[in-house]
Amino acid sequence: MSKKLCAFAPATIANLSCGFDILGLALNSVGDRVEVSFAEGTAITISEIVNGDNLPKAAEKNCCSVVMQKMRERLGDTRGINIRIYKGFQSGSGLGSSSASSAAAAFVYNELLDRPFTKEELVPFAMEGERVACGAAHADNVAPAILGGIVLVREHNPIDMVQLPVLDSLYGVLMFPNIKIKTADARQMLPEKIKLTTATKQWANVGGFVAALYTNNYDLLSKSMQDLVAEPTRSQLIPKYQDLKKVAETNGALAFGISGSGPSVFALAKSEELAKDIQKAMLDCYADTGIETMSFIDKIESKGGARLSASF
Amino acid sequence: MSKKLCAFAPATIANLSCGFDILGLALNSVGDRVEVSFAEGTAITISEIVNGDNLPKAAEKNCCSVVMQKMRERLGDTRGINIRIYKGFQSGSGLGSSSASSAAAAFVYNELLDRPFTKEELVPFAMEGERVACGAAHADNVAPAILGGIVLVREHNPIDMVQLPVLDSLYGVLMFPNIKIKTADARQMLPEKIKLTTATKQWANVGGFVAALYTNNYDLLSKSMQDLVAEPTRSQLIPKYQDLKKVAETNGALAFGISGSGPSVFALAKSEELAKDIQKAMLDCYADTGIETMSFIDKIESKGGARLSASF
Repeated sequence: MSKKLCAFAPATIANLSCGFDILGLALNSVGDRVEVSFAEGTAITISEIVNGDNLPKAAEKNCCSVVMQKMRERLGDTRGINIRIYKGFQSGSGLGSSSASSAAAAFVYNELLDRPFTKEELVPFAMEGERVACGAAHADNVAPAILGGIVLVREHNPIDMVQLPVLDSLYGVLMFPNIKIKTADARQMLPEKIKLTTATKQWANVGGFVAALYTNNYDLLSKSMQDLVAEPTRSQLIPKYQDLKKVAETNGALAFGISGSGPSVFALAKSEELAKDIQKAMLDCYADTGIETMSFIDKIESKGGARLSASF
Repeated sequence: MSKKLCAFAPATIANLSCGFDILGLALNSVGDRVEVSFAEGTAITISEIVNGDNLPKAAEKNCCSVVMQKMRERLGDTRGINIRIYKGFQSGSGLGSSSASSAAAAFVYNELLDRPFTKEELVPFAMEGERVACGAAHADNVAPAILGGIVLVREHNPIDMVQLPVLDSLYGVLMFPNIKIKTADARQMLPEKIKLTTATKQWANVGGFVAALYTNNYDLLSKSMQDLVAEPTRSQLIPKYQDLKKVAETNGALAFGISGSGPSVFALAKSEELAKDIQKAMLDCYADTGIETMSFIDKIESKGGARLSASF
């Protein structure tokens, strides 16, 4: 029987309020799994996408196969590959669905090949999965999906990332309201230019956020996690956004914001108890909307990211 | 004989390339001294400004007296004060001249009063000195001038500062070309709005800069200290700016930029030897301009800032 490996990569929260397009955080319990094995011939085939009927199976269109194709091109490897994909959460949620698949694909194929690349070197390959799925090779989801923890993408070309420390005790509360927001649409809502005074406040907050992580300063983290750039417009696409924010903060959230381009929202909390209170308050707030929701709580860890897992 | 105290506060580099309006760094050897003593009556008088014939002596117009007036108002103290000021460097240099005087004034008067305020609490008072001298109550010079080291001003109102760690070994090379640039003019050159893509790169760099300080990462510091906001326009006011930058970098500078709104420029270096090489190259570069220059090298320390000193 030929070697067959499976890896998991987590959902991620991009932007983290203050760090539009440069910050991302890895979650733990929710994510995608990708299985890979060598196959006869030279083709890359996708034999199954569990929970992903809407996703392309053509090798040149699927993010997982594109990632592996780029990797084997770099290595001059032409051995055929068979891929199976398990989607652990819905695409279009704002939790980095294509990123989780791309990250798991890069990780698992690297393992199958006996690690020709470091984890950091996998990021640009996984970005190619983002390019085919979203139209832009962003790293703010794939970098934490591979590396785990909180990652600052200082520069995209060439890629330069900084893995930031995580506070002692930090829990994420995620809520996905099942409405459609396309990343491209959410991006079009953003202004091409912003006021210098606004930008100045935003980079002051990024500085405060990074300092808070290195000094385990919850108060500074909370004050710094403000979004003056995307939230004012994008929050209008999310029903009851301001109400959700208010109940999260009333129940002790350190921060509340839009995950990536939405519609998922997130809150951060210092303890699991607070996280549960916040989650209940957010779900209660949404009870009368008639909108189907998915919600979960995760401990945010410094480690984590893509890893080998059981098959499916 | 009535009590008489004197304090020194250093020149400062505001902005530090990547942190427009939010970052500042305290120098050590160059700065202003302010002496204070109680006087008969209730008036605040300035009896002498050494090297400052051009500066106002009227209590309501001088930054030092304004700072002390705000402090005694807060305390309900009406005792008369006499002030003497020693200007250690030229105003209009971009090295925080009014800030050094305002910081020394706040510090020394607090000592005379037996420390009713913490160092952090002195910053808003010193900002009032900036308001009267420059028209705006900025903190990016006065905060490091009082606290020392490298300071992030996360928020101005209410003031919220983060004192950042300094790398193990860091030297600043300063060069002041004696040409006139008014802060107000330099500020008017800036665009009211900037591209979101530019702003995103800038806050990525602020994040990288802060992470570099906490991890003693010289390479990351160097990569992060880019100025996409003020340098493109303000550098045009400084003769041979690009040449200076090139020779500084060729001689091993970690970073090169405009100090505050200029015309002073600064380079950072990892060792005193490199700092001397850089200084020589910068002065050589300027030799044919006919512009009078003042230059010095300082070790950048985590401590420092305003402190008691000998009188003058």
